[in-house]
Order: sequence, then C-alpha cells, then structure tokens
Amino acid sequence: MALKEVSSNKSFGGWQKVYSHESSELGCTMKFGIYLPPQAEENKLPVIYWLSGLTCTEANFIEKAGAQRYAAEHGVIIVNPDTSPRDLNIPGDCDAYDFGVGAGFYLNATQEPWKKNYRMYNYVTIELPGIVNSNFGIAEGKQSIMGHSMGGHGALICALKNPGLYRSVSAFAPICNPSECPWGIKAFSGYLGQKETGFWSEWDATELVKRYNGPPIELLIDQGLEDNFLSQKQLLPENLIEACKAVGVPAILKKREGYNHSYFYIASFIGEHIKYHVEALLK
Amino acid sequence: MALKEVSSNKSFGGWQKVYSHESSELGCTMKFGIYLPPQAEENKLPVIYWLSGLTCTEANFIEKAGAQRYAAEHGVIIVNPDTSPRDLNIPGDCDAYDFGVGAGFYLNATQEPWKKNYRMYNYVTIELPGIVNSNFGIAEGKQSIMGHSMGGHGALICALKNPGLYRSVSAFAPICNPSECPWGIKAFSGYLGQKETGFWSEWDATELVKRYNGPPIELLIDQGLEDNFLSQKQLLPENLIEACKAVGVPAILKKREGYNHSYFYIASFIGEHIKYHVEALLK
Repeated sequence: MALKEVSSNKSFGGWQKVYSHESSELGCTMKFGIYLPPQAEENKLPVIYWLSGLTCTEANFIEKAGAQRYAAEHGVIIVNPDTSPRDLNIPGDCDAYDFGVGAGFYLNATQEPWKKNYRMYNYVTIELPGIVNSNFGIAEGKQSIMGHSMGGHGALICALKNPGLYRSVSAFAPICNPSECPWGIKAFSGYLGQKETGFWSEWDATELVKRYNGPPIELLIDQGLEDNFLSQKQLLPENLIEACKAVGVPAILKKREGYNHSYFYIASFIGEHIKYHVEALLK
Repeated sequence: MALKEVSSNKSFGGWQKVYSHESSELGCTMKFGIYLPPQAEENKLPVIYWLSGLTCTEANFIEKAGAQRYAAEHGVIIVNPDTSPRDLNIPGDCDAYDFGVGAGFYLNATQEPWKKNYRMYNYVTIELPGIVNSNFGIAEGKQSIMGHSMGGHGALICALKNPGLYRSVSAFAPICNPSECPWGIKAFSGYLGQKETGFWSEWDATELVKRYNGPPIELLIDQGLEDNFLSQKQLLPENLIEACKAVGVPAILKKREGYNHSYFYIASFIGEHIKYHVEALLK
C-alpha cells in the first residue's frame, strides 16, 4: 500500500503530515492527517484516531483543534481521516452538506448506489489502521478513538462494535442517537434503507450500548450547552446517557457552559481529552 | 463609532469575537478579531496587536494560531485586524495576491489610486486602538505588537516609528527590508512611487532602526530555517540584524530548525511570544 506525502509541516517539535493513498475499501483516493510527535523518532507510540464531523476534510482538525501541542507533550500519535469517499461522482453525492460527500457517517452502506464505496466503517476500523500500523511506529494494541459531531457518533460506534479494540473513547458533541434525529434519519434512510430493515440499530450508539458485551468500557461525552444542534435535537446525549444507565455502562457527560459546536469549543477541551486517552493508553 | 458583532465563540473560558465597523481612515467597512480572556470580565487588561501576512483576513490568526490558550493563561487581550481595505473595487486591487486587497503593507499610500484608502498604518496605530480602548477594558498604555511576514514588517515599523507607544514588539518571519526584496519593491513602487521619491525608507524596518531615537527598544525576530521565503530573499533578517548591530539596538533572532512559513510554525511558538510580551506589559 503506497503512501504519498501530500504535505509536511514541523509543529511543536514533531511533524504534521498529510498522506494520500488508494483505498480498496472505498474505491477512491483518500487523504488522512497524521501528527508524529518528537518522541516518534525514537519510540513506538500509542495512537489516537480522530473522526471529524459533517462537511469536514482532514484539514479542519489539523488546522483548528490545536491538538499537536498536547500530542507532543504526551508523546502520542494522532491520525485523522477524511469524512467520506471523494471524487466518485455518484449521482446525488454533492446535493447536500449532510449526505454523500463529507457525510459518510462512518458506516457501511447497504443500499444502491452507495454500498460499493460508502464503507467508512471498514475504512476507519480496518483499512486505515492497517496502513498506519505498517507505515509508522505504533505501539501494538495501543489505540484509542475520539471525534466530533458525526465523528463523535463514529467514535462511539467504532468502540461499541469492537469490544477491546480501543483502550478508550471520547466524543465532542456526538450524534448520540442517529435513528431519532433529522441528520441520522436522512443518512440512515439513504445509506441503509428504511428503518424497518433493522439495519439502523447496528449503527446507533444508543442502541449498541444496550447490547454491549465485552470488557469494561467507559464513554466520555463532551457537550457545549450553547450548541445549536443540541437545542435542535440533532445530538440527543440524554438518550445515550439514559441507555448507559439502564445497562450499567459508565458514561461521563461533561457539560460546558457557554460553548457552542465550533472548533473554538473543541480546541478549549482537546487537551483534556488527549490526557484522558493517554492515561488509558499508558495503563 | 458603532461596532457590530459579527461572531462570538467561547474559547478557553473567554470569548473570541469578531467585530465590524466603518473605518474613516480606510473609507470602508473593516473587521477585526478580539480575544477577551476570562480575566477581562473583572479587570482592565493589557492588549497585544497581531498583524497578519499577505492574503490573510482576520480569520487566519483566530482559527490557526492557537493563541487563545496562552492569552487566557496570562490574562491578555489580543486584537487582530484585517490586512487591507476591502470591497472598494479600485481597478487592479484584486489582480495579485501581493498587492491591493489582502496586501496593505501597513503603510499610508502616497500614490493614486491608493492614497485615499490604503492607509493601514494610521488604521492600526491610531484608529483601531482608539476603537479598542473606548469599547473594551484596556489597561492604559499597556499595548504591544507582533505579526507574521508582511505583518511582521508591520509590527516592526509601527514600533520603530512610534517610540514608547508599544511596550514590546516581536515578529515571525518578518519582511525585514522591503526596499530590497521583490514583495516590498512591488508594493512600495505601487503605493509610494519609485524609490527615488525617498518615501520607501520611512516604511522599512532596516532603514528605520538606523535612525531610531527613543526609549530603549528590543526587537524579537523569529525565523524558521526551512522557510521558502527566507531562501527566496523576501525576508532578509540578516539585513535588519546587521543594522541593529551597527546602531546598538538589541535584537534577538530566534532561528527555528525545520520550521517553514506556515501557521503550524506560528502555533508552535506563539506561546513563547505572548509570554515575552506579557513580561514587558506587566513591568
């Protein structure tokens, strides 16, 4: 699997790089960001995956989250993929910001014309880690996952569907119950067919947590209280927290007074999340 | 002078805001960013002005430099203006990235058709501080200035032309000797006329330092050693350092191995610069 370096910028003593590669899962060229802290020159390091939200590419997190400083401080690699396949020109894939390009929802589609390429779940849980592990010095088995909004949903379902694969999981303003919110209903209807197919609950954190069966897991959910999408009922953290309580899965809900859905909010707390993951990764 | 709030995002416990206003100096609507750390709710605080480089608006620094964390830590306000007048539709003002819109060079133009509106020097040293001081809680006389590339040039000339106005000055990869580099020659020829007019040396840090006459001043110059514009002789820090030595003005040149001209470089060292300014401002 040949990687092509797209950009390389020295940052906090390490390197913020972007690579492109041909994805067999998605059938297109994909880009991802990787921050290699200074410690990566001598040691194998743990890795945290970051999944971005609707409309993002790999660039938003790299440029706006300010994560490099904390990754350098703690000696952890951060990998952030794009949010969907690109340049496939599937009819309708660019008609809306919340479906198709930039809106892969980290699932494997079952419906035409999406099912061949819209396989972001397999991409982020299998193909990309395979590439990262074989090209960079990753400490074996030391990976965690986090994300924002649609990517928060992605992080949660990746962790819940793969017991033990990630040491820890956290999410900023995640779409917690996509089966019940407008964004999720639109995306799931398109990618998975109508709800009656039964596919939806396989990609919904609030449903998945109810049947979680694996080693102990804790969900760190972060939520700004002035987030418009919270009041618009797109995120529904209360549904996930209730489901966690019902089945005894520990969940931490950090409520952030005054913060909205933006990268200003993410940047304010990304250091806290990275520290949380590093503590789990160093155990 | 009425300010209109364009955006407001909570960040590191404070507020990153953008305002617009009618500028009498520039004859157009201008935007600027202001970060108000949490301490601003109770106290008057010092302010640091940031001047951005070619092609930037007020957005780049706000989104990419990661300065808010350090400003919140130290209790300092940061104000960052746009880089030129906007929306004037002066013939030729959008023909190139390095002249006209996005490229005001922080001077007062003397040539038609620029001299009526391209007065960024008066804007950043007089009009904008007047607006900031009358609308926000600024500790009297406590201001410093910094910038990047064209904005590093701007910070240096603002400090050198106004002895005592700023407590400290620093610059990332500044255009140190615009009279002698392609960017500067193009801009100065357009805004100020040919070199023989004698105007150029009034806007060139390397010339201004030779005749600096005021309270002791120190120049903090930061330079990435893998900066393409350094090797292309656009920045010429060696000329400024030599001039400083000749007249006994102290200059600190921080050379950064492996760093380029990007905001990844700025973000890596903005904390160090803010700390440097805060030490001068708290004296």
